Amino acid sequence: MNQTQAFDPRANPAAVIDHTLLRPTATAAEIAQLCEEAVEYGFVSVCVPPRFVPQVAEQLYGSGVLTGTVVGFPLGYASSESKVFETREACALGAQEIDLVIPVGAALAGEFSIIQDEITRVVAAAKPATVKVILECCYLSDFQKSALATIVVAAGAAYVKTSTGFGSGGATLEDVQLLRQVVGVRAGVKAAGGIRDLQGFEAMRTAGACRIGTSAGVAIVQAWRQREGLP
Amino acid sequence: MNQTQAFDPRANPAAVIDHTLLRPTATAAEIAQLCEEAVEYGFVSVCVPPRFVPQVAEQLYGSGVLTGTVVGFPLGYASSESKVFETREACALGAQEIDLVIPVGAALAGEFSIIQDEITRVVAAAKPATVKVILECCYLSDFQKSALATIVVAAGAAYVKTSTGFGSGGATLEDVQLLRQVVGVRAGVKAAGGIRDLQGFEAMRTAGACRIGTSAGVAIVQAWRQREGLP
Repeated sequence: MNQTQAFDPRANPAAVIDHTLLRPTATAAEIAQLCEEAVEYGFVSVCVPPRFVPQVAEQLYGSGVLTGTVVGFPLGYASSESKVFETREACALGAQEIDLVIPVGAALAGEFSIIQDEITRVVAAAKPATVKVILECCYLSDFQKSALATIVVAAGAAYVKTSTGFGSGGATLEDVQLLRQVVGVRAGVKAAGGIRDLQGFEAMRTAGACRIGTSAGVAIVQAWRQREGLP
Repeated sequence: MNQTQAFDPRANPAAVIDHTLLRPTATAAEIAQLCEEAVEYGFVSVCVPPRFVPQVAEQLYGSGVLTGTVVGFPLGYASSESKVFETREACALGAQEIDLVIPVGAALAGEFSIIQDEITRVVAAAKPATVKVILECCYLSDFQKSALATIVVAAGAAYVKTSTGFGSGGATLEDVQLLRQVVGVRAGVKAAGGIRDLQGFEAMRTAGACRIGTSAGVAIVQAWRQREGLP
């Protein structure tokens, strides 16, 4: 997760894509198809609503594709206690990656210690699962983003992530660069929200993202294969 | 909640308004102001993010204004177990009203028993707090809305509610009429999402809603006072 070597455009994008389906209308059948695609294309993980974790963990068992889900998603203002509960339950049911939303209003009010405590507790509850902390950058100043990225590292989370995809804006190149500058090699940076094609994917990778959340993973990999002359 | 007598436009709208602030950026200071307004104007309740329940319950103690919060909000796809946990925690901390979001994808897949079981469990966990069940009508067919309204009654919830305010559409008059027709006097109907002025409020009341969720409560009551020639 901490790789900072230059992005290699010849490498398969699938290896860093969280294949994502988080629409509120998603059905069990659509989630099953998502998992099939993840195995076929070799995505690093799927990211699905919590209630589908048991189904996904079973379907992906032994495939090498990780089961990921979301906590406190997408508004981030559930109680810390309930986020810990959600995390513990999801991991017990097979989740290997947890994308946690911080309470954005606490950041806006300068209540950073609330946020650090919450992340620390969720990281402990998730162990050994990977925790990615979503800042929802569209609502934050650069100072707040920097302070929060520092907190994410201090709390022991593996990744800082730009966006839920449900806020007023998604990932921007400037945000990815800023977050990477702050965390250095101490954490990964995940870009998500509005990444819809190979060009957008590569721009985010070049800006410093080492994980990409998108529901356009299949199209991105197909475009890459075509460009590289692969079958 | 079960009143079906004709709507009286001379009655104070505040008595049926859930004074609502559910933006992800809401701060403790904004929530405190919301509570002040609720007491000043006599709203039936406030509806706030879960993490503010302790603050609100303390501020409203003895005021007669009810403390309300949301569970599984706004996407509805948290696990049933975590919704029960959120409900139990919120009620232990002082919540008197719980607005629960159903798993919409389960309804679209025809998995109605999952939804009925979940509502039944949340109602039990909330007791004696009031449970309002949000269907998120914008994603549903009329058949699905009717089936779900019947399920809400069977599961013992007090209200069926149209929308979260975060979906692709808010409350419509047609949906309120349909839900009222199905539940009759066996449950209340709460309209929420996009109700921004006195005209919209009264249209929803006339259509059969006996509770209104809105963040425009102050403006609605002021417009009503002006029209009625009250100070």
